[in-house]
Amino acid sequence: MTSKNIQFELLAQEGEARCGVLKTPRGDIRTPAFMPVGTQGTVKAMLPEHVRATGADVLLGNTYHLMLRPTAELINELGGLHKFMLWDGPILTDSGGFQVMSLASLRKMSEDGVTFSSHIDGSKHSLTPERAIEIQCLLNADIQMVLDECTPFPATEEEAERSMELSMRWAARSKEAFGDRPDQALFGIVQGGIYRDLRERSIQALTDLGFDGYSIGGLAVGEGPDLMKQVLDYTAPALPREKPRYLMGVGKPEDMVAAVLRGVDMFDCVLPTRSGRHGQAFTHRGPINLRNARHAKDPRPIDAGSDCPASSRYSRAYLHHLFKAGEYLGPMLLSWHNLHYYQELMSGLREAISNGQVTGFVEGFHAQRAEGDIEPL
Amino acid sequence: MTSKNIQFELLAQEGEARCGVLKTPRGDIRTPAFMPVGTQGTVKAMLPEHVRATGADVLLGNTYHLMLRPTAELINELGGLHKFMLWDGPILTDSGGFQVMSLASLRKMSEDGVTFSSHIDGSKHSLTPERAIEIQCLLNADIQMVLDECTPFPATEEEAERSMELSMRWAARSKEAFGDRPDQALFGIVQGGIYRDLRERSIQALTDLGFDGYSIGGLAVGEGPDLMKQVLDYTAPALPREKPRYLMGVGKPEDMVAAVLRGVDMFDCVLPTRSGRHGQAFTHRGPINLRNARHAKDPRPIDAGSDCPASSRYSRAYLHHLFKAGEYLGPMLLSWHNLHYYQELMSGLREAISNGQVTGFVEGFHAQRAEGDIEPL
Repeated sequence: MTSKNIQFELLAQEGEARCGVLKTPRGDIRTPAFMPVGTQGTVKAMLPEHVRATGADVLLGNTYHLMLRPTAELINELGGLHKFMLWDGPILTDSGGFQVMSLASLRKMSEDGVTFSSHIDGSKHSLTPERAIEIQCLLNADIQMVLDECTPFPATEEEAERSMELSMRWAARSKEAFGDRPDQALFGIVQGGIYRDLRERSIQALTDLGFDGYSIGGLAVGEGPDLMKQVLDYTAPALPREKPRYLMGVGKPEDMVAAVLRGVDMFDCVLPTRSGRHGQAFTHRGPINLRNARHAKDPRPIDAGSDCPASSRYSRAYLHHLFKAGEYLGPMLLSWHNLHYYQELMSGLREAISNGQVTGFVEGFHAQRAEGDIEPL
Repeated sequence: MTSKNIQFELLAQEGEARCGVLKTPRGDIRTPAFMPVGTQGTVKAMLPEHVRATGADVLLGNTYHLMLRPTAELINELGGLHKFMLWDGPILTDSGGFQVMSLASLRKMSEDGVTFSSHIDGSKHSLTPERAIEIQCLLNADIQMVLDECTPFPATEEEAERSMELSMRWAARSKEAFGDRPDQALFGIVQGGIYRDLRERSIQALTDLGFDGYSIGGLAVGEGPDLMKQVLDYTAPALPREKPRYLMGVGKPEDMVAAVLRGVDMFDCVLPTRSGRHGQAFTHRGPINLRNARHAKDPRPIDAGSDCPASSRYSRAYLHHLFKAGEYLGPMLLSWHNLHYYQELMSGLREAISNGQVTGFVEGFHAQRAEGDIEPL
């Protein structure tokens, strides 16, 4: 096996919290990292240069959506996903499994994989561990995921075990299909629901195979923050120290902070863009909804001190008006602001961990939110 | 009367076509000028800095929409429309009359003005010549319009005469209400439908009053390009040579070119942004619709040689995908591209007129379009 051109370097650790850098041929990913989601080949309502300007090092693309439209084959013919969507930094793709379960119809699971009908036009498709890798290679994804079954919550221990074991067999097939790709990374995905024994068996199975990084799947599926933290408490530290750890589909700012304290390095979530499209802005004092009448005459920007134009230049009164009037510019500006807030949170965590001050940083994070979601005018 | 700080300077004339500059305290408006429409305090799907970057010198705001939401009074309280929407260049506002007729319900016209119900919430409002000026002053519009009645098409000569005469009485009241404002301009609006005698009487009435500029109203309302050109043939040259001439609500690229040849200086239209939101891109070879399947695999940008990122960086295949997938970025990019195309057309006309080459320029404009709307791959 040739040596990998994707390498993780741990720069600092404080308690379980880690700060590092995942070096890739397309650029460095500073961790803890938040990956904006570009489901259909675009981070919704954002120009790629503005996504970059928020401080994002890496994007997430969704295999399920792209395989259906415009198809992985067409994106490949056009030069790959980076060129297609004008993003020259690294791209991480999921395997498509999660979205098949949440969006597709007429699903049939078997040992081999899953067949389903497209939510767009009803056309029939199948996804196997091998096909998921093939698609991610056609997209030219820098960081790829094994196909897995995201165990639902709640699940009995027996259900979670059966599901985890299937995912581990699929992980082995995925690794085999992925083969030897020096410029691309393959991550295994830990499953096992809320059962410690299953999580540990899953980690053992994956580390026996050996992956370039480890994802934690099956969380943020309804178990709530307390159970999530419990699972992370024993799952994250059990993962190989020298590899990046990615908590899939998380999350809320407070959940990401909790996960970083438990040793997680990477995150993705649609929350900043989705909630931005609905008028919600994340702030240091908590989320605010710009549709609310209390913002109608407020001349202040969301964050006067920010270096993000969307945060610092437009008044809350204007943003309120844009959402009331149903204008495109409202979602455009709040998606931008929220992505900037998320990157700022990651950068704050990285700096705090580097300086051995993560405890104080997290105390400050919670104290600011406790002050209430908005300063009096 | 104090001297005006808004002054029109004619720089070149070729036939009836004119090139000039309307100097305002907020910056120069180079003519022929196209004014992007910012109906509700935003040019739809565009950041203000990108509108500026296309080459736009001036925006149009809609009095009817803004008086209803968020209200002219609130915009005034927040520092005026420029500050509200982050546009520091000049803004021209219409009087609201046209939109009352096309959007509001329960309209009642009288000599005094018009009462109506809001299309948003049914609330009752009235618009008189005096109130239209008051609103435009609250918005702090640099160039304001008199309230008029846009004569519909078709209209009998008697209907057009009655309507034009009402508009002329309103023009006198508007000028009286506007008073003496050195930093702002008031334009009269020529009406009279397709009747030369009425147009000439309207021009006489307005020039007797004396305005800072003259708008041509009541066109682009269904009369078609041939009748529009006929009306412009006798209307535009009859207007004072030393004042700017604004053809309201026009238009299509070919209509603007025809109007410039007849002596028009200023235009506004929702077409570039509205059609951009629906997948249509204007090009030198005519409009193309990116939703069309023939673009699905086309790796070429809309215009490789353009200095507009939306025109030159993204492939047609990608734009096709964005529209098929219903993504925000499609309307964002095509609105940007189309506004850039419109400004490029204006800039080409200005340069051609300055160099005495407008005939050749217009021949080239039509020849390129005759080649077909798309080059073979």
